[in-house]
Amino acid sequence: MTTTSATPTAALVIIGNEILSGRTHDVNGQWLGARLAGMGIPLKEIRVVADDKGAIVEAVNALRARNTYVFTTGGIGPTHDDITTECVAAAFGAPVVLDPEARRRLEAHYGERHQDLNEARLRMAHVPEGSVLIANPVSAAPGFRLDNVHVLAGVPPIMRAMFDGIAHTLTGGPPIRSLAVTSHVREGDIAESLGALQDGFKDTDIGSYPFAKGNRIGTSVVIRGTDPQLLKEVGAQVAALMRGLGEDPDLGEVV
Amino acid sequence: MTTTSATPTAALVIIGNEILSGRTHDVNGQWLGARLAGMGIPLKEIRVVADDKGAIVEAVNALRARNTYVFTTGGIGPTHDDITTECVAAAFGAPVVLDPEARRRLEAHYGERHQDLNEARLRMAHVPEGSVLIANPVSAAPGFRLDNVHVLAGVPPIMRAMFDGIAHTLTGGPPIRSLAVTSHVREGDIAESLGALQDGFKDTDIGSYPFAKGNRIGTSVVIRGTDPQLLKEVGAQVAALMRGLGEDPDLGEVV
Repeated sequence: MTTTSATPTAALVIIGNEILSGRTHDVNGQWLGARLAGMGIPLKEIRVVADDKGAIVEAVNALRARNTYVFTTGGIGPTHDDITTECVAAAFGAPVVLDPEARRRLEAHYGERHQDLNEARLRMAHVPEGSVLIANPVSAAPGFRLDNVHVLAGVPPIMRAMFDGIAHTLTGGPPIRSLAVTSHVREGDIAESLGALQDGFKDTDIGSYPFAKGNRIGTSVVIRGTDPQLLKEVGAQVAALMRGLGEDPDLGEVV
Repeated sequence: MTTTSATPTAALVIIGNEILSGRTHDVNGQWLGARLAGMGIPLKEIRVVADDKGAIVEAVNALRARNTYVFTTGGIGPTHDDITTECVAAAFGAPVVLDPEARRRLEAHYGERHQDLNEARLRMAHVPEGSVLIANPVSAAPGFRLDNVHVLAGVPPIMRAMFDGIAHTLTGGPPIRSLAVTSHVREGDIAESLGALQDGFKDTDIGSYPFAKGNRIGTSVVIRGTDPQLLKEVGAQVAALMRGLGEDPDLGEVV
């Protein structure tokens, strides 16, 4: 798909040893990728990095330099392994400061619940100097935005609520739509024709995904782009290719 | 956890627009992370990159320079969007060549099935010069290893079968084990004590993971390291911390 220099892009840094060790299955990447595509902001890269200062700083700096928006998930809680705030601050060369409004929100939240706003919890009211808070409607402790870097929680429902609260501040492009055409055709039998089709329709991205279901194998061809009519046109041609090989394709809707 | 310069490490490059767009949920990262941990080869970073030559070459070169092993998944099929082989070749400055043994395997596979080994499928017999083939017991088209970079299929059962075939060629360290202690304690109430525990047991990694199940929130503390006895010792101390706050923790087994 042709993207111009004006097309906004995004990258995601997932911070967490628990993802790398295989203990936890990340679901934030898929959710954010789909959500951003719908806003016309293609997600260009995801990096999963360890709870390691050097690794986090490097990833944030590399990705913020080349994307319109960077998001981070994870590592903003009260425990010793929550080091995202200090790492993002270090990436920008900014000091970490106590944010009075963040403190007020934590005081209100824990006060209502008769829980102690101890030193560990108060860490969550600290942000890099110059940050704008990102509201956390679930558990109060805010995220923050510094320049183009948006620091979100790692717990999926909290991450989603935070993102929903800032989505209106992001400038997107035309939504990226997709259309899937699926049949039991073998990928290798349509590969050459698909390549020619891709060459002829450079304003779409044509992806080919083989699958195996039980004993039957097949291929899903997914066409992506911003023009629904064009997707339908290419989809019809892919379906025709498959029919030419004796298959009865399932031609989906543009979503 | 203290790792010495002798500890082998790994990184994974996941190649695929379908992951970044949110269409497909990657499961290879979690599987490989867990498998490598069991072999004493911590996975240090995962990068999900688009089907884009520049992005793939950059990721492969950055990660192979700093890890013992690099794995890639995806992009080695017969279609136009399968560009991993040419990208890995470019990362090493190697030409792509037809591998006679790979061709033989494809001829046997497609011959048995009376399918056409057409030009598109023959692309899958091409590898960077100097590569060693990685067997594909599922669908014949091989992966390859070039220096420390292992190129695997993206379809999960094929990726797993390929990895299982080369696992014995990797030199691991002591297996990384883990022990989870879970209760309805609030993370902020044990944060300070956990931090002190981490300071006292530098040969383990202590991670704290809050969760919400229905209306109840809680925390799983996961202790990771290579010494099962040490994990039990730290686990007992975490359980004692939780009991001190009136909770009845679930102390798991070392796995």
